[in-house]
Amino acid sequence: MSTKKSEFGVFGLGVMGSSISLNIADKGYELSVFNRAEGGEEEVVDRFLSSNKHRDNIQGFTDLKAFIQSMERPRKILIMIKAGPTVDLVLNNLIPLLSKGDIIIDGGNSHYLNTKRRFELARGHGIAFIGAGISGGEEGARKGPSIMPGGTRESYKFVSEILESIAAKDDFGKTCCTYIGPEGSGHFIKMVHNGIEYVEMQLLAELYALMSKQMSNEAIAEVFEGWNQGVLSSYLLEITIQILRKKEGDKYLLDMILDKAGNKGTGSWSSKAAFDMGIPNTMMSSAVFARYISSFKDTRIKMSDLIDSGHSIEEDLDLVSIEKAYECARLINHQQGFKLMQLASDTYNWDLNFSDIARIWSNGCIIKSHLMNLLHKEFMCSKDLFEMDLVTGSLVDGETALRDTIMSGLSKRISTHCFSAAYYYWVDMTTKNLPANLIQAQRDFFGAHTYQRVDAPESEFYHSNW
Amino acid sequence: MSTKKSEFGVFGLGVMGSSISLNIADKGYELSVFNRAEGGEEEVVDRFLSSNKHRDNIQGFTDLKAFIQSMERPRKILIMIKAGPTVDLVLNNLIPLLSKGDIIIDGGNSHYLNTKRRFELARGHGIAFIGAGISGGEEGARKGPSIMPGGTRESYKFVSEILESIAAKDDFGKTCCTYIGPEGSGHFIKMVHNGIEYVEMQLLAELYALMSKQMSNEAIAEVFEGWNQGVLSSYLLEITIQILRKKEGDKYLLDMILDKAGNKGTGSWSSKAAFDMGIPNTMMSSAVFARYISSFKDTRIKMSDLIDSGHSIEEDLDLVSIEKAYECARLINHQQGFKLMQLASDTYNWDLNFSDIARIWSNGCIIKSHLMNLLHKEFMCSKDLFEMDLVTGSLVDGETALRDTIMSGLSKRISTHCFSAAYYYWVDMTTKNLPANLIQAQRDFFGAHTYQRVDAPESEFYHSNW
Repeated sequence: MSTKKSEFGVFGLGVMGSSISLNIADKGYELSVFNRAEGGEEEVVDRFLSSNKHRDNIQGFTDLKAFIQSMERPRKILIMIKAGPTVDLVLNNLIPLLSKGDIIIDGGNSHYLNTKRRFELARGHGIAFIGAGISGGEEGARKGPSIMPGGTRESYKFVSEILESIAAKDDFGKTCCTYIGPEGSGHFIKMVHNGIEYVEMQLLAELYALMSKQMSNEAIAEVFEGWNQGVLSSYLLEITIQILRKKEGDKYLLDMILDKAGNKGTGSWSSKAAFDMGIPNTMMSSAVFARYISSFKDTRIKMSDLIDSGHSIEEDLDLVSIEKAYECARLINHQQGFKLMQLASDTYNWDLNFSDIARIWSNGCIIKSHLMNLLHKEFMCSKDLFEMDLVTGSLVDGETALRDTIMSGLSKRISTHCFSAAYYYWVDMTTKNLPANLIQAQRDFFGAHTYQRVDAPESEFYHSNW
Repeated sequence: MSTKKSEFGVFGLGVMGSSISLNIADKGYELSVFNRAEGGEEEVVDRFLSSNKHRDNIQGFTDLKAFIQSMERPRKILIMIKAGPTVDLVLNNLIPLLSKGDIIIDGGNSHYLNTKRRFELARGHGIAFIGAGISGGEEGARKGPSIMPGGTRESYKFVSEILESIAAKDDFGKTCCTYIGPEGSGHFIKMVHNGIEYVEMQLLAELYALMSKQMSNEAIAEVFEGWNQGVLSSYLLEITIQILRKKEGDKYLLDMILDKAGNKGTGSWSSKAAFDMGIPNTMMSSAVFARYISSFKDTRIKMSDLIDSGHSIEEDLDLVSIEKAYECARLINHQQGFKLMQLASDTYNWDLNFSDIARIWSNGCIIKSHLMNLLHKEFMCSKDLFEMDLVTGSLVDGETALRDTIMSGLSKRISTHCFSAAYYYWVDMTTKNLPANLIQAQRDFFGAHTYQRVDAPESEFYHSNW
């Protein structure tokens, strides 16, 4: 064990905290790690240290004061604990022990509004607080995650070297960590990242549902493997291929897994933020709801008795259309996700750089993909996917395929929640006249909410005596 | 002007406050009304009093103390102001002037969590607080709204006579006001009421979109008029018929209204509550998002240039299918709405009576309908629309019509956000095996989130080395 003052501290040695600690230690930094020694976690630090005896740059602590005192100033402490009220408890314990200028980084999936609140709380004590989204799961944390730090630019300078050294590298060798913006911006974009992830997963689930009635898991994997060679390639597609092929004895493991999807809340946070901002974030909501619906397994089994299962039409699958539809739906998903960040950026004056965000999402994280690399380039000139000819061209070209894929689902009695949400959003966004005039008339009829007119300036509001 | 002590007070003489005051005065109660005399509202009380000179049971005030002192104790004060922080300001001004046992009723569209907070704040001062949802718009408030009071049962006893006398009457002559449950329950069900309303309006808008390419407004009105004679009859259908027929000179007024729908937030509140509770409230979200999408009129106009508008298929409309689809979608809408209330009731121990709720929604409110009367009866024996043979029978019977209506929209390039949300929800809820097993596999692959198995108890969670 080293006796030098440490350059960095990690608070919490769960799966993610341990992995990121080893990642930091690998880079040669002097590191202090802390974990409480109670509530079943008595052995955590000892176990971590004893399985890393060969390293001489890690000091382990179960005493918070000693942990703090082991670090050079300004101290840089990365908290890796479950998001929620525990973060506030930890801050309450940490802050009195710290010195002005010290820096706390919250690497969990905290809600951006909590991060904003904690940022201000810490600032009141002269402590800098950085809310850093970290994506990549256990493997990413260990080998190189995508890191999205939000806070003051000044405080970021003190931690940039370490954070950027442990992050993944993009196609050009640049680090997948960059300063995002003030206060909760890092956690906001991590939240949107997870929302995009929910949709990407649901799209694959819908494809699997569409194909699995007529194709074996292996046959689907082969199709996906073909797609994964080109513009559709992504980490989630890649692991889906592995999942489809995974066997347990002579059975596919996938077939043995219960179809009740869990969630940890970040998907619904994106949806709720979109509702508050007036943004039609239709695909993320559909993906979250699809998981919720799956959780009602008992009701589904009981109610499936009502349905005559013999009626589905076994027409041929049009794999060319399905591939195009998948491409379109992914484009809309990314358009909606980036649009949500753009509105947040405008609302909170975060001045987000979307080209940079796409770049640090091009490796290390769960939604890394060929598309993300393209978006990195495209966002250098455009602010919205709908302003990119590459995107709108693909959508115009693929619209019929998207529609046909939805129709194929309808004829097979298979729900395409996210494909349909993508299609309707695209259709409405390219439709001059929607039936919302009727809604405005109804609102004016029963609530005197007034309406605007097509033959008058939008600044004028009218009320009729219906 | 009366000099007797008043039996009731109304705070705020906006459209709703004035209407409900006159409704109360009509019933013969001695009434005090208050409005501030500043910020452009200097004349409000004077105007109200002078246009009601013939009444001897209304006293008007612009001085808050005098208003309070004019009432007999325990005072009963109905606040009719815009929901939001103003309600807190008013409470801060009111509470110090009141006596223990006095009762404040908030008749606005306050968020149920704010109502819960205010309920507790007022209780700390010995004041009872009732959060009362009031629906029916201006006309309802004047002639008989539907009223949904939540608070303590004891405090409700003091105001029940007046509230029940001013409410609408149901088909059996009973009042459309009943005690709902504790704290924020009244405002919660009003929020769900508005969510159901959003969907009912969006369904009509989608029908209008489907039909208006091939039918005149008058022809659509005729079809709707036929439907309104039977099980589909509702207030919103009725006003839609009037809207479709309303002319301005030789033009239909509807055609002159701008297709940008507004909203006041209560629809999105329902969606956000559903996300928090894990309930797939798909139709309300779709309806809110459809309004949001409509608001991007400039983008829509610009992007419509991308689309060749000549491609839509002008097949015949199958009005029989569309009618059945509308019936099914409305059933799903009500199932989702009541399900949301059921979960809130279970979560907060509100012990809501859904038969009573359907009954007080059978008249006076915006979503009154033939269906609501049926639900009043059905909820006497069932807790969920999916347990009612009447409902599931119609859905099994109408599923194909619902699907065909969605397909008709697809072939016409018309979005059926809410019809599709209804269909997919129904399909998934009657499907034994959904593709959520793939999502669980993905989550376990990248995040070690574990999964359950079809061949093991649900209490067991597995992790694979993928």
